Amino acid sequence: MIENDTIAAVASGVGGAVTLIRVSGGGAIAAGDRIFRGVRGRRLADARGFTILYGTIRDGETVVDEVLVSVFRAPHSYTGEDMIEVSCHASAYIQREVMRLLVESGVRTAQPGEFTLRAFLAGKMDLSQAEAVADMIAADNRAAHALAYEQMRGGYSDEFGQLRGRLLELVSLVELELDFGEEDVEFADRTQLLDVLSSVGQRVDRLIASFGLGNVLKNGVPVAIVGVPNVGKSTLLNTLLCEEKALVSDIAGTTRDVIEDTLNIDGVTFRFIDTAGIRRTDDPLESLGIERTFDRIGRALVILLLTDARDSVDDIYAQYASLSFKAGQRIALILNKCDCLPDEELRQKRERLSSKIPHLVLPLSAKRQINLDELTDFLKRSVDSETLNGDRIVVFNSRHHEILLRAREALQRAREGIESGLAGDLLAQDIREVLHCIGLITGEITTDDILGSIFSKFCIGK
Amino acid sequence: MIENDTIAAVASGVGGAVTLIRVSGGGAIAAGDRIFRGVRGRRLADARGFTILYGTIRDGETVVDEVLVSVFRAPHSYTGEDMIEVSCHASAYIQREVMRLLVESGVRTAQPGEFTLRAFLAGKMDLSQAEAVADMIAADNRAAHALAYEQMRGGYSDEFGQLRGRLLELVSLVELELDFGEEDVEFADRTQLLDVLSSVGQRVDRLIASFGLGNVLKNGVPVAIVGVPNVGKSTLLNTLLCEEKALVSDIAGTTRDVIEDTLNIDGVTFRFIDTAGIRRTDDPLESLGIERTFDRIGRALVILLLTDARDSVDDIYAQYASLSFKAGQRIALILNKCDCLPDEELRQKRERLSSKIPHLVLPLSAKRQINLDELTDFLKRSVDSETLNGDRIVVFNSRHHEILLRAREALQRAREGIESGLAGDLLAQDIREVLHCIGLITGEITTDDILGSIFSKFCIGK
Repeated sequence: MIENDTIAAVASGVGGAVTLIRVSGGGAIAAGDRIFRGVRGRRLADARGFTILYGTIRDGETVVDEVLVSVFRAPHSYTGEDMIEVSCHASAYIQREVMRLLVESGVRTAQPGEFTLRAFLAGKMDLSQAEAVADMIAADNRAAHALAYEQMRGGYSDEFGQLRGRLLELVSLVELELDFGEEDVEFADRTQLLDVLSSVGQRVDRLIASFGLGNVLKNGVPVAIVGVPNVGKSTLLNTLLCEEKALVSDIAGTTRDVIEDTLNIDGVTFRFIDTAGIRRTDDPLESLGIERTFDRIGRALVILLLTDARDSVDDIYAQYASLSFKAGQRIALILNKCDCLPDEELRQKRERLSSKIPHLVLPLSAKRQINLDELTDFLKRSVDSETLNGDRIVVFNSRHHEILLRAREALQRAREGIESGLAGDLLAQDIREVLHCIGLITGEITTDDILGSIFSKFCIGK
Repeated sequence: MIENDTIAAVASGVGGAVTLIRVSGGGAIAAGDRIFRGVRGRRLADARGFTILYGTIRDGETVVDEVLVSVFRAPHSYTGEDMIEVSCHASAYIQREVMRLLVESGVRTAQPGEFTLRAFLAGKMDLSQAEAVADMIAADNRAAHALAYEQMRGGYSDEFGQLRGRLLELVSLVELELDFGEEDVEFADRTQLLDVLSSVGQRVDRLIASFGLGNVLKNGVPVAIVGVPNVGKSTLLNTLLCEEKALVSDIAGTTRDVIEDTLNIDGVTFRFIDTAGIRRTDDPLESLGIERTFDRIGRALVILLLTDARDSVDDIYAQYASLSFKAGQRIALILNKCDCLPDEELRQKRERLSSKIPHLVLPLSAKRQINLDELTDFLKRSVDSETLNGDRIVVFNSRHHEILLRAREALQRAREGIESGLAGDLLAQDIREVLHCIGLITGEITTDDILGSIFSKFCIGK
């Protein structure tokens, strides 16, 4: 898989005015000169790095396009190899022709992620940084972008570097004991060892715990809007999204399908899930929708239970009690259509419900847009704001999450081993396993399989 | 409309790994320096043209992305103005942020085609060349690309420049006569004048005639496949396209909708039109399809009349006779399912039909893929090959076509005027009108309206 041939790919997107074709490898500049003719006879081979040449791409004597070619020289390029970037007119025909001519000049079409793979192999970045490049390209909101950028810049690698340093110290002491074999010395004070292991364990636990948040920030915070039919779920969703995505009518049970839409509040994406009403029904189509609703509620991070403010306190409480929530879910009980009640009655209802329910109780009118700001405030607060300001390292890559779970098990075994007086060689083995896991994240330990599966998820041209 | 402010737009397409943001205008480099921080403190203001700087785009102290910025200095840029091109990671978030920061630095979002408009206004290209840029980007086959490239390079402008030169000579002689008013001199020999006008007229006629071909090469050659139901039209189309786009079955009248698909043969795009069967029917839905079929046949350049080889010569001839063709249409009569007949019978049928019909008669089996090469040869021959090799100037822009029709009328009036001894001032007016038309094509004569309508068809970022 790791070869030093020259690769090329279209790096820019579909359509537009300009197409960027990227070439990397020892033969990049020579291949470019075979198809490029610079003005006043200038050649790429004579160009310095970080300069641009103007000229034409030619197929024999036929001009394919007028282009700009950027030249980068190893090691000062994205991949660390010689690179050129051809900026041509964004026509499907020209793009095909330039790629064909490059291939005929001995260049190979790049695999997805192959440019970044080469940057990793050249030591330009570690594996977690390389993975962050793909996440950064996919980021569509500020929070996800900040996480990916932090990781790409190596903040993540620092954290793992520190963990690694402490563990290496430990394991070398334990392994030193093994050299003295029969003599039964303990260079590594077992109490200190336990301290360090549990301190490392706490950091690993915190990273694992951050994955839920990382995942949510990357993919959007799932918000379920739940309530009996006709209570105004679709109207609330539409008001929040300011457009008519869901079908709104006065007939109970109108919304049969689960509709998803997203809203960006202060850089965080919220995925709204509009649901079929939760009530018993004999209509098989509708009951299917209700089943799906419960499924969605279970996976939501935020639940907005929408009730009709005109219903009795007992009725409203019964609707609340009929749902079961999971730990960590943020819940708000919303008294919708609050404009239909006298102020005093509404105030009393809210007080009585607040005393029974350990969540926010919020009067609201989706139709008349009353108290909508309070609702978006609640949504904003439902996401850990400290993290958004970049104070903490957040895991948002599921590969890293899986490896961290494995590291946690090894740490646990090591700690139990110390407590039960396990032999040094077995102890060392467990600590080595934790080090191995960290190496898998940063890429100090890799296999072609791992690299293949990571970089194949990239887009072509990166 | 013509302002000298600084504009910016995303020039690359949607998705991909890299996004290119283009900035042009007197303030481009200063605006770039407000949001860009180069490594080792390098500034765009200090960079020479045709060089690239590496650094970060920042919103205050927050890093938005690591980027490459290309610097171009007036007049050596696409627009002739100072330009920078920011190459950043292709994330929707980063793209939005960079554009926002540029706008906050006093840059305006560009209108479609505004970069090319500036290139035109700076005298970097004439109007027909600027128009060719958009056509070149839209080109998806070799023929359309060659036409657009020829025009962009100015081959077109040369042709009009020559016409213009000869007409200017004429009109100045005629106008000289006017200065002598009452004296009744004729500096411009009327016979010579007529010669030149009819020579110019012939060139204009040839350009007008080329529009049909130009249009066809740009949009694809329309090919209608016609025949009675169940004769195998969909099978033939599928075989040609090598995929199952049309619904194929043994029930007569299966294909009700007109389906279009394209095939590229040797750089020319053919647009295939599969049609409902042509027979009388009482099914209103089907008769609608048949009506559309006749409509499509009329607009096709190539007609493949598909018949069943097993039918009698009289039957087949009757199908042929039931259709009416237009001048210039290329027709082939295809004897499909030719594998179902003994060779000798097929040979005789073909001979008898060939003697009755002045078109290609081709035995074929779409199902068994017999004689398909002969069919693609026929398609290739149906397009004027001389033109494809770039020997002639071809008009493919409908704006130019309309203007040429107007020029032809004025030329006609001028010639008739000479023959009927029209006064010099009226004659000069007609010749001036022809010159005006040529100016409208090359852009020597423009109005904001013309420019607006031309450049608004461009994509943003070009």
